[in-house]
Amino acid sequence: MTFSVTILGSGSAIPTLKRNPSAHLLNVNERLLLIDCAEGTQIQIRKYRIHFQRITHILISHLHGDHYYGLMGLLTSFHLLGRKDELHLYGPPLLQEIIDTQLQASGTTLIYPLHFHSLTSENYELLFENEKVTVHAFPVIHSVPTFGFLFREKRQQRKIRKEVLENVKIPFSIMPKLKRGEDYTDPSGKVYRNAELTTDPPTPRSYAYCTDTLYDEKIIPYIHGCDLLYHEATFMQDKLQDAKDKMHSTAMEAATIAKKAQVRKLIIGHFSARYEDMEPMLLEARSVFPETYVVEDGDSFQI
Amino acid sequence: MTFSVTILGSGSAIPTLKRNPSAHLLNVNERLLLIDCAEGTQIQIRKYRIHFQRITHILISHLHGDHYYGLMGLLTSFHLLGRKDELHLYGPPLLQEIIDTQLQASGTTLIYPLHFHSLTSENYELLFENEKVTVHAFPVIHSVPTFGFLFREKRQQRKIRKEVLENVKIPFSIMPKLKRGEDYTDPSGKVYRNAELTTDPPTPRSYAYCTDTLYDEKIIPYIHGCDLLYHEATFMQDKLQDAKDKMHSTAMEAATIAKKAQVRKLIIGHFSARYEDMEPMLLEARSVFPETYVVEDGDSFQI
Repeated sequence: MTFSVTILGSGSAIPTLKRNPSAHLLNVNERLLLIDCAEGTQIQIRKYRIHFQRITHILISHLHGDHYYGLMGLLTSFHLLGRKDELHLYGPPLLQEIIDTQLQASGTTLIYPLHFHSLTSENYELLFENEKVTVHAFPVIHSVPTFGFLFREKRQQRKIRKEVLENVKIPFSIMPKLKRGEDYTDPSGKVYRNAELTTDPPTPRSYAYCTDTLYDEKIIPYIHGCDLLYHEATFMQDKLQDAKDKMHSTAMEAATIAKKAQVRKLIIGHFSARYEDMEPMLLEARSVFPETYVVEDGDSFQI
Repeated sequence: MTFSVTILGSGSAIPTLKRNPSAHLLNVNERLLLIDCAEGTQIQIRKYRIHFQRITHILISHLHGDHYYGLMGLLTSFHLLGRKDELHLYGPPLLQEIIDTQLQASGTTLIYPLHFHSLTSENYELLFENEKVTVHAFPVIHSVPTFGFLFREKRQQRKIRKEVLENVKIPFSIMPKLKRGEDYTDPSGKVYRNAELTTDPPTPRSYAYCTDTLYDEKIIPYIHGCDLLYHEATFMQDKLQDAKDKMHSTAMEAATIAKKAQVRKLIIGHFSARYEDMEPMLLEARSVFPETYVVEDGDSFQI
């Protein structure tokens, strides 16, 4: 199953020619989930040749413009291009008013169903699930209500060993039970332990998106052990006070969270436009957590 | 005096990699006026290396997203980059609510003075003037309240002939009177006619921006004789019914307005994304008004 993320925007508040502000596109088995949607996101989607009508869900982490000013344009383009499929949108409550006012001002009634879901929880909360993934939100600490997101593959069923099917005659009706982990007793009374018949399914993969936030160890339990963690790193450690004042994190802080949460791989982004050479930023993070990568617009990561 | 316009966006509702939606930047004596501000406009401003803190006025023709979805991003970037100068913004009344709601949602109080001016007039109306230009708005016919704009240089003072200064001794205090067109009588009683002493100032130049509109001859008196007319041309004549249904114009209609208004030069834009080869569009318009040009993003025109 495809489970990958493409970085549509790796910059922070001020767009540059090199870095668009925040937007990540998650591909879960060829259904697309968009996480944040800064100005220019729809252009990025075109640039990276993504079929954007496949987006089924959009999650907006918070209402700072560099995370959602591209949303109205994308919603409008869906409309103009004749979208019929429903779209689920998650964001802070005021987002609905912002959208409604602008649709009203343009005299637009969207031709596709747009379902708005308010993000209000103060705890780790299931937002939705389908047969492939669960998506949770959790609050992070920023100057306005802000949410991180966790995308976790569902555990697949056990896989029946090929050689078993050649050697043991198992009725077709029993197969689902084996996949669920049950043992099998054949007509002669011989018991086959499930572990003899099946192999473990792949370990479920997970991706965590930790957007604009102060360094906050409270998120560690939510993201513990995840395969890929995105954590913002607006500044380096020499601007720690700026980071605190603006409720952002440094590269070293992002790496510390990654280390304490024992994730497999860390990607950092949301860089202040002041940083042009990213090597020092990368080295700072890797001094704490070696499996760190600095993202660029257009990068894709298999999870 | 510089009087030029740069096309930041020449496309219509759906952005493409080649054409951003509407935004024109007018340079009046090195002060910049932005006309419409579609998503991505601030990126276009960077791309064309324009010093965007020099923008003193922004005019939004109407509240369709392809004319203003980049406004919040630009206002926010001004703020983040430490703008101090006041900014004057003109647009339909609802725009103020749209801006205020989004500033409130992000907890932002702009650090520069933003003066909002509602566009409501049903007639040709002076919006503002300075020592160099006057700016008027006039209603056009579209599916929501929509305005065209006329930028007209003020008539400069008469210029004193160089050879006069060499041959006639004119007191310094008299100069302003000569520039205003008065005659001069010297101490001996000899009268010099103003035309002997001065030359005509350059003819004032003008630029008209006729955004999304049905073909509408009512605008002709407002734009009559202007040096450069921008008129939208979303479709070609073979899609005349589409143009009417969507309250847009064809290339031929834009050219007809240009011809009837006896303008010097016509530029057309706001092309539907369906048109890739612009040659037929250009030929259609030139068959009616030869001095027509198809604009591309980044084009500049001296007025």
